[in-house]
Amino acid sequence: MTQVIADITMTLDGFVAGPDDGVEKPLGEGGERIHQWLYDSASWRELHGREGGEARSDGALVEESFERTGALVMGKRMFENGDGPNGWGDDPPFHKPVFVLTHEARKPKVQEDMTFTFVTDGIESALEQARAAAGDKDVAVAGGANAIQQFIKAGLLEELQVHVAHVLLGDGIPLFGRLGQEQIELEATRVMDAPGVTHLQFRLPT
Amino acid sequence: MTQVIADITMTLDGFVAGPDDGVEKPLGEGGERIHQWLYDSASWRELHGREGGEARSDGALVEESFERTGALVMGKRMFENGDGPNGWGDDPPFHKPVFVLTHEARKPKVQEDMTFTFVTDGIESALEQARAAAGDKDVAVAGGANAIQQFIKAGLLEELQVHVAHVLLGDGIPLFGRLGQEQIELEATRVMDAPGVTHLQFRLPT
Repeated sequence: MTQVIADITMTLDGFVAGPDDGVEKPLGEGGERIHQWLYDSASWRELHGREGGEARSDGALVEESFERTGALVMGKRMFENGDGPNGWGDDPPFHKPVFVLTHEARKPKVQEDMTFTFVTDGIESALEQARAAAGDKDVAVAGGANAIQQFIKAGLLEELQVHVAHVLLGDGIPLFGRLGQEQIELEATRVMDAPGVTHLQFRLPT
Repeated sequence: MTQVIADITMTLDGFVAGPDDGVEKPLGEGGERIHQWLYDSASWRELHGREGGEARSDGALVEESFERTGALVMGKRMFENGDGPNGWGDDPPFHKPVFVLTHEARKPKVQEDMTFTFVTDGIESALEQARAAAGDKDVAVAGGANAIQQFIKAGLLEELQVHVAHVLLGDGIPLFGRLGQEQIELEATRVMDAPGVTHLQFRLPT
């Protein structure tokens, strides 16, 4: 049965991107460092049709994340940064249908092996469309931080996998910020250490 | 040889205390939840002369933290909150000399088995006095967040152990906030999972 998951890397000090992100610098100042473990992974590179990279002890975890995901929901800012001149270019690293949360209606953007669909009527509608596209697989909230926070606040997120990168970035976009709601107890379902990153997987109460 | 360490619990969303901390609520709103794993630990309770608690898989880690520490440095706010009417009372859970960073000179406060010494001339002076008191053991920066941040920014912290509590608190006092300096690469020296908390130990570059 479809689970609604988020799967994202943050630094030990809680950042998913560096400061001053935008179309010029999609991940903000120094933000590439955060996700470097993934870009360096031979498993990730192979899944996205790229050569090279290193065999890592968490390769199977990266493959599992990719295989279980049938569709993604993405915030507008992540889309706009990634779709810009310094972003993912003609080959976005998703290869699954992506539903973008936005306030402006626009036609779907069709890429070689996937489509960005723009959803103007909120996260529940985006989730419903992503569920339909995902079939038996899971729906992943790709990010950014704001989209993940919206799903947590709405009680819609069922699983959260945080890859804690072993670095203090010092500034940037925090994954959680001040969610401001009642405290949420998490149930750890897997903890895995790997070079440069510790993978923490949790179930959220539903 | 003496190491300068910090050893503190934060929630997955990065808080070491709840919001609105003060002498009335030393750990802020809901802050007891953060440190509950430690208070529940039979090892911690025994070290601090208290009965009860549960045998936990991380008992040896708690004992190691206590045994290796010869003296502590503490921020003024943590001291004042803890020393207040709802704080630690006549039996502070340190049992080692504590050097409190403050701007107001005052005489040492002598407790049954330890003394609070007030240091008005900065963190390097506090560290020097704590080193002298620690002998061959380590100096621990007890907290709060601000004191730990000062030691990180000054490049004085050699080891950081973060106990990540499996809860999203939603608001409070962040351990790191925006340190604002150049990024700091961390070397993981131990990762240990335990009920309700994941222990991450890092070396900082010196």
